[in-house]
Amino acid sequence: MSTMVKYEEKPLKIVGTRPIRPDGVDKVTGRARFAADYSLPGQLIGKVLRSPHAHARIKSVDTTAAQSLPGVKAVVTRDDFADMPSEFAAAGELTINFRDVTRNMMAREKVLYDGHPVAAVAAISESIAREALKLIKVEYEVLPHVIDVVEAMKPDAPLLHEEQFTDGVTPKPDKPSNIAKRLVFARGDLEAGFKQADIVVEREFNTKPVHQGYIEPQACLASASEDGQVELWTGTQGHFVFRAQCAKVLQMDVGKLRVVPTELGGGFGGKNNIYTEPLAIALSRKSHRPVKMVMTREEVFRATGPTSGANVKVKIGCTKDGRIIAAEAELNFQAGAFAGSSVGMACPCTFTRYDIDNVKVVGHDVTVNRPKVAAYRAPGAPIIVFGVESVIDELAKTLGIDPIEFRLKNAAKEGTQTYYGPKLGPIGYIETLNKAKAHPHYSAPLGLNQGRGIATGFWFNIGMETSSRLNVNEDGTVTLIMGTVDVAGGSRASMAMMVAEELGIAYDRVRPVIGDTTTLGFNFITAGSRGTFAGGMAAVLSARQAIERLRQRVAQIREVALEDVLWKDGSAVPAPGSAKQFTPMSLVEIARMAGKTGGSISGQSEINAQGAGPGFCTHIVDVEVDKQTGAVKILRYTIVQDVGKAIHPAYVEGQMQGAAVQGIGWSLNEEYFYGADGVLQNPGFLDYRVPVASDVPYIDTVIVEVPNPNHPYGVRGCGEVSIIPPIAAISNAINNAMGVRLRSQPMSPPVVLKALGEAAGGKSKG
Amino acid sequence: MSTMVKYEEKPLKIVGTRPIRPDGVDKVTGRARFAADYSLPGQLIGKVLRSPHAHARIKSVDTTAAQSLPGVKAVVTRDDFADMPSEFAAAGELTINFRDVTRNMMAREKVLYDGHPVAAVAAISESIAREALKLIKVEYEVLPHVIDVVEAMKPDAPLLHEEQFTDGVTPKPDKPSNIAKRLVFARGDLEAGFKQADIVVEREFNTKPVHQGYIEPQACLASASEDGQVELWTGTQGHFVFRAQCAKVLQMDVGKLRVVPTELGGGFGGKNNIYTEPLAIALSRKSHRPVKMVMTREEVFRATGPTSGANVKVKIGCTKDGRIIAAEAELNFQAGAFAGSSVGMACPCTFTRYDIDNVKVVGHDVTVNRPKVAAYRAPGAPIIVFGVESVIDELAKTLGIDPIEFRLKNAAKEGTQTYYGPKLGPIGYIETLNKAKAHPHYSAPLGLNQGRGIATGFWFNIGMETSSRLNVNEDGTVTLIMGTVDVAGGSRASMAMMVAEELGIAYDRVRPVIGDTTTLGFNFITAGSRGTFAGGMAAVLSARQAIERLRQRVAQIREVALEDVLWKDGSAVPAPGSAKQFTPMSLVEIARMAGKTGGSISGQSEINAQGAGPGFCTHIVDVEVDKQTGAVKILRYTIVQDVGKAIHPAYVEGQMQGAAVQGIGWSLNEEYFYGADGVLQNPGFLDYRVPVASDVPYIDTVIVEVPNPNHPYGVRGCGEVSIIPPIAAISNAINNAMGVRLRSQPMSPPVVLKALGEAAGGKSKG
Repeated sequence: MSTMVKYEEKPLKIVGTRPIRPDGVDKVTGRARFAADYSLPGQLIGKVLRSPHAHARIKSVDTTAAQSLPGVKAVVTRDDFADMPSEFAAAGELTINFRDVTRNMMAREKVLYDGHPVAAVAAISESIAREALKLIKVEYEVLPHVIDVVEAMKPDAPLLHEEQFTDGVTPKPDKPSNIAKRLVFARGDLEAGFKQADIVVEREFNTKPVHQGYIEPQACLASASEDGQVELWTGTQGHFVFRAQCAKVLQMDVGKLRVVPTELGGGFGGKNNIYTEPLAIALSRKSHRPVKMVMTREEVFRATGPTSGANVKVKIGCTKDGRIIAAEAELNFQAGAFAGSSVGMACPCTFTRYDIDNVKVVGHDVTVNRPKVAAYRAPGAPIIVFGVESVIDELAKTLGIDPIEFRLKNAAKEGTQTYYGPKLGPIGYIETLNKAKAHPHYSAPLGLNQGRGIATGFWFNIGMETSSRLNVNEDGTVTLIMGTVDVAGGSRASMAMMVAEELGIAYDRVRPVIGDTTTLGFNFITAGSRGTFAGGMAAVLSARQAIERLRQRVAQIREVALEDVLWKDGSAVPAPGSAKQFTPMSLVEIARMAGKTGGSISGQSEINAQGAGPGFCTHIVDVEVDKQTGAVKILRYTIVQDVGKAIHPAYVEGQMQGAAVQGIGWSLNEEYFYGADGVLQNPGFLDYRVPVASDVPYIDTVIVEVPNPNHPYGVRGCGEVSIIPPIAAISNAINNAMGVRLRSQPMSPPVVLKALGEAAGGKSKG
Repeated sequence: MSTMVKYEEKPLKIVGTRPIRPDGVDKVTGRARFAADYSLPGQLIGKVLRSPHAHARIKSVDTTAAQSLPGVKAVVTRDDFADMPSEFAAAGELTINFRDVTRNMMAREKVLYDGHPVAAVAAISESIAREALKLIKVEYEVLPHVIDVVEAMKPDAPLLHEEQFTDGVTPKPDKPSNIAKRLVFARGDLEAGFKQADIVVEREFNTKPVHQGYIEPQACLASASEDGQVELWTGTQGHFVFRAQCAKVLQMDVGKLRVVPTELGGGFGGKNNIYTEPLAIALSRKSHRPVKMVMTREEVFRATGPTSGANVKVKIGCTKDGRIIAAEAELNFQAGAFAGSSVGMACPCTFTRYDIDNVKVVGHDVTVNRPKVAAYRAPGAPIIVFGVESVIDELAKTLGIDPIEFRLKNAAKEGTQTYYGPKLGPIGYIETLNKAKAHPHYSAPLGLNQGRGIATGFWFNIGMETSSRLNVNEDGTVTLIMGTVDVAGGSRASMAMMVAEELGIAYDRVRPVIGDTTTLGFNFITAGSRGTFAGGMAAVLSARQAIERLRQRVAQIREVALEDVLWKDGSAVPAPGSAKQFTPMSLVEIARMAGKTGGSISGQSEINAQGAGPGFCTHIVDVEVDKQTGAVKILRYTIVQDVGKAIHPAYVEGQMQGAAVQGIGWSLNEEYFYGADGVLQNPGFLDYRVPVASDVPYIDTVIVEVPNPNHPYGVRGCGEVSIIPPIAAISNAINNAMGVRLRSQPMSPPVVLKALGEAAGGKSKG
């Protein structure tokens, strides 16, 4: 189906207002059903035995004692799953390496990180399941491990995968390596560029893996029938993708697996990957009982994917008047135990805010003995932008140019040629810079030990396969069924609003529902800020098809031609200039007669959404540094972001604010502590410190609306962009306050204190 | 949408075979989820306080003590529901009287039958809920009651509804009556007809209400949110109709109520009506907790609808050579406490097996102090056909004509003008008579005290609103989503077979699923033998739309015109004679590329199915009567039935066999015993005796296939027809065996013994 729905300016009644979200009341009353809230008669509890070692060969797994413990109904190990070759295979719009997927869900030859699953049991109670785990005997041959990306890239580093040769290097290497892939993006003549530059700054930055911080741990419930049909309830950002992956690893027909997406307690990229789902299905198959598996917080930290920790190098050269001539970066990203970090997305984000003639970005995807990384809101971009926007700040400062002015001199705009491929379409980057500059925050006075930082972000927006359907009920209310999971951001509200706007009916007459995998065609995961863009496009197309059918019914009832029937404000009315006049019919009237005029009225669409619009933002942050403790306090925070069109401004603001808060946590406090043994030491929210309400001020937001011409309401991606600038902005603000420049994250009190001390001792510069 | 899908003879690969049903394994392993198997966190248990009187005025209901019992979270009474006027209002394709619906679910001014709900409570346990019921004080003024239909029709009978005046009588009566409605169907000149007749037989028959005998009691689970949205899981034959009715009585938007149909443990017409559903929702609204309500078997018997008990009079006149000239009948049907028996359906069924010039049928719908009747497989038809086929038998016997021959002389056929309106289309009645006559059973020898009976049946088939959808998954498997509940008869299998046949793929590559009310447009209840007819038509239309889209994709991929692409055996191939040749693509290949060629591929249809085809059957039964006990043993039973086309012959045979078994139970054993106080004395399967396996022989079946020209596979209604003849056939067989003719049901041992005794004393005739 074509997706020819372009932006068209029109008076709006519902889009742009702030109604209550349909999932709101249930969430505050506790009625919302998350995965762990589902239960089935006779269900068992599944638990996973996990590796205590960062790296070890599995010599044997003996489950005999566990299997004979009364109450234990099934045990699965590596022997219960098919091995798969190391090749990239398609599954649910993703092409991934199922060798790695199967090995990440259940270790095969080796355990590759602390927490790596080795066996799973299903028992009639959680306590029996835990008891059974203790009875499983695993013989390990412990191997040397490596968890740091720089260490792992060294030729003599402990090797995770003996058969892994760096991809993207010519000639093909003859020695295996932890570097899974090398990526190069380049444009222009870098060497010549740097030669032209009056000033060149080159710096190195290091970041730690951080957790998405979703409140709800992963949970699922699986029920496999003896005839091969399986039902799976799970908290996921993409039930169709989970279906594809589980079907693949369990070697079953996609059509035999029904995946029901439950209410989601946060995802942020962390719920795009299967973990216990195939184990629960395998245990259910074996036990002939439903199996429920709920991760503990400790398991979430030890064994699900955080974002990459990274080492990045940035070099930028510019003229005296602040025009950037050449830019170079190297991105070394931890992939965790299996290849596939977000370096591939980070590379094109590195310099895309700027119009630079000579660019080279090199990325390395590096396996280390940590859990395989997952996406985290604008995956990879905050890491590299920390480096780039710090260097930009240093350049502007060195040249004595206002940091916003410096960015404006180099800002990307419509028509800018990127170094990774396309020319940019209509974007609002310059608008965000100008609005930030004009914002009262930017000129407000600062006190002692206070500083102000600026940083900007760019992030993609994707389309992908999307389906939706709406049914006009017999009383004229409308049920909108969508396949893009609402990852707690309010997309159900936004899509119901667009549908109500199209149909010309009240917002609360549209009930949006996320359908399970049986109800709709394929839908890609809610990722890449695509939910409201692609889901909204599909919903609008469904509404327009319904309107066409409503008009057809009226043409039939009133005995007029279809072209004589115009849809206006929720009613079919005579088209202006039409010879045929007739009494208008409202949606309610048409709906009431639907059965008698041919059956109920619906609208559907299945698309591969095209024309996604990237987003840009500018952040201003004020900090105060406590010289005694090294604590950094966020005093004021302002976000200016181009969202194309804010369908529901309050939820757009919420996205911006939430992203910034996560960025603040990332900047100041969050990090995984691993011991020398490669074992995680802080697997819980007591020791892994995410920001709490008292850590952040009210985050001020300014919505910029430069419509995306390819979306019917001008929507562009908005959910991810604002997590990108905070680390850089806060580092720049600390520099502005104290003169020290921090190039590692987190900028926690001991780190800041140490830097202040070194600066006092004359060691800091920048 | 048009339903222009006519029958077309073609070679079939899947339709007509006997694959395993997709719901089979789960039902035998206990995995199938019936309504009572659903649970939600924090759910309460709801129980109903029911009237102990057959008829009483409610003077007061005091729930104070119940409400203060610890653990009780909500109590509802009549005061919690809106009163509604006595008028017929549309709800979900039915036009019904909501005054009665609200009063049946919860008594208002009066209780009208033993078991009538008076209050309902929700508590944290069933025992507390039961305790709370005992604390509710109801003050009754007991009124005289009437439970017999003939008594209730008398002018001085106790009156159920003071405001009920007989409808259908001119002039409008000035006195209220228990006769809610009088119906008249007539054709020709009855008086002249009877004058022409050589022989006239006039007889009176009486039948008792009988229960549908579904194994699963009614159950539901409701969860109402504070924002007005409600979810309801329930065992129903029509979730869209339940949605419409609950929304109406609870005065809410249809779109705010999501009804999930659970697996159904039998319905047979008994699960078309809401009982505890609105009470559960009201209790959930009030308690802010989910509420589960499961009826006990006693409640099912006391308070849900059986079929009508009836008094019928039949008069038929024919010529000496067996040509029927005139026929008259009066049908007096118990409606139970509220108007709306199946007399309106029974009247047109009375004589429609025969081509008769002069006919008059009068029906009365009569309210009595019993639970409001519900549908029961071919509602009303078995009752009146008992009378008519008995009289036909008597006429044939009197004239010495073979009973099948007699029927053949008078048989309806294509073009026969009915007395209720339409001319009959292509039907297979004569074919069933001829095949029965030729069947070895018909000429097999009989022993002492053994007899053979014949009877025939006709039943309608309806279309109504139907929606379906199928999604082609990325591996080429197909999910078919339907809105017609599979009332345990195997319609999921049949519809998957038709879809597989259309698509040219294997049966087990199609997964059929019953969607909840959010997933599809409106679907009428599974009733009137419409499931496989209308649901199948919608499924075929969905498959054909998907094929059209598959062809479009191939045209796009192969760069050929759509008309050059033919769909054949699961692949797109070059159309014969087409200039453009291309490499064929299978469904799997197209599906794999769907995302990249525009999005996933689906097919939908929403229809109001037209052209339903009625069914006819002929039954042969042999009985042996035990002269000592009066017990009637069924020795042999053969059904010959026209089903149009048996999509899945085994399930069609199962329908025929199951219907006959229910008819056998109805004939010989089943009845409600009410005491003089109007209280039911046998509310359970221990005292209400349904047939068990040892009561019935293997039921032999002969499928006749006279295709319905209006259905793509020739399907006509098949599920109900064969419950119609058994009572008459068995009575005719008893007469054949022993010379006595029984004109009341059940023909239980005491009744038979009495008749044999009277015959021995010279009192029986016929």
